Amino acid sequence: MPQLGLLRGRAWTVLLGQLRRPPGSVCIRAVRSHSQVAEALFASQLKPHQEKSNFIIKTPKGTRDLSPQQMVVREKILDVIVSCFKRHGAKGLDTPAFELKEMLTEKYGEDSGLIYDLKDQGGELLSLRYDLTVPFARYLAMNKVKKMKRYHVGKVWRRESPTKVQGRYREFYQCDFDIAGQFDPMIPDAECLKIMCEILSGLQLGDFLIKISWKDVRHEMVVKKGLAPEVADQIGDYVQCHGGISLVEQMFQDPRLSQNKQVLEGLGDLKLLFEYLTLFGVAEKVSFDLSLARGLDYYTGVIYEAVLLQTPVHAKEEPLNVGSVAAGGRYDGLVGMFDPRGHKVPCVGLSIGVERIFSILEQRMKTFGEKIRTTETQVFVATPQKNFLQERLKLIAELWDAGIKAELMYKNNPKLLPQLHYCENMGIPLVVITGEQELKEGVITLRSVASREEVAIKRENLVAEIQKRLSES
Amino acid sequence: MPQLGLLRGRAWTVLLGQLRRPPGSVCIRAVRSHSQVAEALFASQLKPHQEKSNFIIKTPKGTRDLSPQQMVVREKILDVIVSCFKRHGAKGLDTPAFELKEMLTEKYGEDSGLIYDLKDQGGELLSLRYDLTVPFARYLAMNKVKKMKRYHVGKVWRRESPTKVQGRYREFYQCDFDIAGQFDPMIPDAECLKIMCEILSGLQLGDFLIKISWKDVRHEMVVKKGLAPEVADQIGDYVQCHGGISLVEQMFQDPRLSQNKQVLEGLGDLKLLFEYLTLFGVAEKVSFDLSLARGLDYYTGVIYEAVLLQTPVHAKEEPLNVGSVAAGGRYDGLVGMFDPRGHKVPCVGLSIGVERIFSILEQRMKTFGEKIRTTETQVFVATPQKNFLQERLKLIAELWDAGIKAELMYKNNPKLLPQLHYCENMGIPLVVITGEQELKEGVITLRSVASREEVAIKRENLVAEIQKRLSES
Repeated sequence: MPQLGLLRGRAWTVLLGQLRRPPGSVCIRAVRSHSQVAEALFASQLKPHQEKSNFIIKTPKGTRDLSPQQMVVREKILDVIVSCFKRHGAKGLDTPAFELKEMLTEKYGEDSGLIYDLKDQGGELLSLRYDLTVPFARYLAMNKVKKMKRYHVGKVWRRESPTKVQGRYREFYQCDFDIAGQFDPMIPDAECLKIMCEILSGLQLGDFLIKISWKDVRHEMVVKKGLAPEVADQIGDYVQCHGGISLVEQMFQDPRLSQNKQVLEGLGDLKLLFEYLTLFGVAEKVSFDLSLARGLDYYTGVIYEAVLLQTPVHAKEEPLNVGSVAAGGRYDGLVGMFDPRGHKVPCVGLSIGVERIFSILEQRMKTFGEKIRTTETQVFVATPQKNFLQERLKLIAELWDAGIKAELMYKNNPKLLPQLHYCENMGIPLVVITGEQELKEGVITLRSVASREEVAIKRENLVAEIQKRLSES
Repeated sequence: MPQLGLLRGRAWTVLLGQLRRPPGSVCIRAVRSHSQVAEALFASQLKPHQEKSNFIIKTPKGTRDLSPQQMVVREKILDVIVSCFKRHGAKGLDTPAFELKEMLTEKYGEDSGLIYDLKDQGGELLSLRYDLTVPFARYLAMNKVKKMKRYHVGKVWRRESPTKVQGRYREFYQCDFDIAGQFDPMIPDAECLKIMCEILSGLQLGDFLIKISWKDVRHEMVVKKGLAPEVADQIGDYVQCHGGISLVEQMFQDPRLSQNKQVLEGLGDLKLLFEYLTLFGVAEKVSFDLSLARGLDYYTGVIYEAVLLQTPVHAKEEPLNVGSVAAGGRYDGLVGMFDPRGHKVPCVGLSIGVERIFSILEQRMKTFGEKIRTTETQVFVATPQKNFLQERLKLIAELWDAGIKAELMYKNNPKLLPQLHYCENMGIPLVVITGEQELKEGVITLRSVASREEVAIKRENLVAEIQKRLSES
């Protein structure tokens, strides 16, 4: 029976394929018994190219839905970040999810292959934005804006290889803060680093360090600062070192460097930066590290990257390798690439990677079994009796109209216990109960879910009493 | 000189092309003098297919950036909407910007041609989401969720024809609220209408009306409710009518309808809906109108649409035709289209169209010349003297660390007047001033921008004093 053997082999392939699906995905019209699989395969041997109607219900590769629990975590993260951006006087800005394809061309170097293009359906050629920086530069050039401090929170898309480490998604949030304009040296740069520190401290992610480097050190030192190549090679020593202002001072003392006026200027900028960081109280969080040489194509000067130190905050937590959680730097040439006359607008900025921070906080919540409220409901409108829907609807409309967050069960005649259980499960603090007794006496029973205490409140005082309780809690 | 005449004609075409560009766009490498244009055209006659390197810096057709002023308006709108959704106990949810192409197939009928597809760059075939409803249904089916009240605020994309009316964009925000699950009839439906009323009232857009209909009335009445086609034709009378509960009552009295059990049930549902709307205090905002027969393919029962009434709120305002600002309805079949066994999850929901509301509020602000603050900065750190950068940086870091929103000028030695002017322009309420005198006396001068009053505050009391003033204002 060679043919049956073949069938069996192929049936296994199908079944193994099912097992290999990502958890949580559902196979439409593919949930079949063994005999159904065999039957389908037999049919597909007869019509070998027609058995293709099955599809898996899933999100695209590298993307995901955020459940209500996850949404609460992300909202908290975004809130800390945006509050900090506003604390530093940034304005909001939004740009479209896609740009003309040519706007993104020649901005990302070898990463350009990761850009999502839209299909040519007639009209313009479009690409999904790859970051928020290039659209910002395009905005500045298009509107001839010479000076702006803005923040932007939005999704970006990159066709990352699927073999990347945990937390690498193809769709992810970026939170950017940038300062555009010609200013006295290193003041905006220092503020960007201060902001990074405030956000990482505010998110309570444990200890962190910001590494600073100079984009393409050699290029800077040799081409721009006019250092002889043989001297530039000698500076190689410093690539091994990392440290704070003391390392910069040490380089100052080095005659190989201090004899060159341009290099002295570069070191002067670095020294200035560390002076400002000291005044901001964050110098000990920042380390000068010439070995750091990553960053996107458009960076031109100082670049930095925040890494979490691997010691877990609590003994119970497992260390998690999350790589960098924020990055940024100076890009003085990018706006000029969009300007018809090449007019430059110097810029410096930073970008917070929300997804990695998210995965740390999510893991921590799982470890500690923290319960997250997914709604903000303050009051539940309940009844122990039948035929009280009308009363409940009138009551809840009154609460809504007073700005109170309220829910009820979408049932004509719900039982009391499930209503109270729902409140406990969802963390709703107050229940108002109406019934025949209450109606007769012109009162409402107000119950505290935590203490289970109940008091009768005059119907007309109910909203005021609830507002009083909520403002106290 | 026929050739010169030809050149002149083509030069005009080029120049006219420049004039036809949308305002605000910049032409890169195309700003030329007349003689340069002629020169280029002459060259292009020699190499006719090479003159194509010019490009316009702009956003894609049908999209736009939102400036800081516009962002403030949009944030205010979203805040009213999301607050209302939370007041009704909704959980948050997020889905990716794109879906597998096949997830969107056969969901939108003839509108499917407006879906943006992504280019096939290897891997899955993807499309940008067209609304937030289909991704929600996909989420419910994929996670086998049978009951959920969620809101979702996010961008959607539609390749609308560019000849559409003002306010039609190809990228726009939707704010959706939906209730999924099997519940007693018309309670969730009534809540959706109540929410629409709360939001439209809350946004102070002037008077509005919500029109209610039944998706494909004939189909419902004839195929589903078993009404004889000749009777269905007679109901045509009612398509001309619109009204509230009285119209429903009138139909109840009509023997052509009341003799049919199924139709009686349908009318019973409608009557119930209006009863609930009365209890919610919004019945007078809702009109039953069988002539309304629009809505997406997936709607199955009651559908509704909110329209602003055209009377302007203030005499100074010009009437603006904005069409509908919110829409929604019941879609009991959509989730089942994703479920392997076709299990249905009844759903009802609504969608608020932010862009149209935005254009109304923006126009109103322009009419009244309302000034919008684009930052939330509370305090500006200034100095009248040279060499006070260090002191200012120390001071502002202290404010930031105390959670106070603060800015300074990124200049080593700014003049005092521009610093004070900046505060007045930006609406920053407080200025702290440090100088030699203040340093000697251990104080800081605190200035109110509005009253121009200045008081000396002990350096160590500064943060507390600022916090006190801010909490009072």
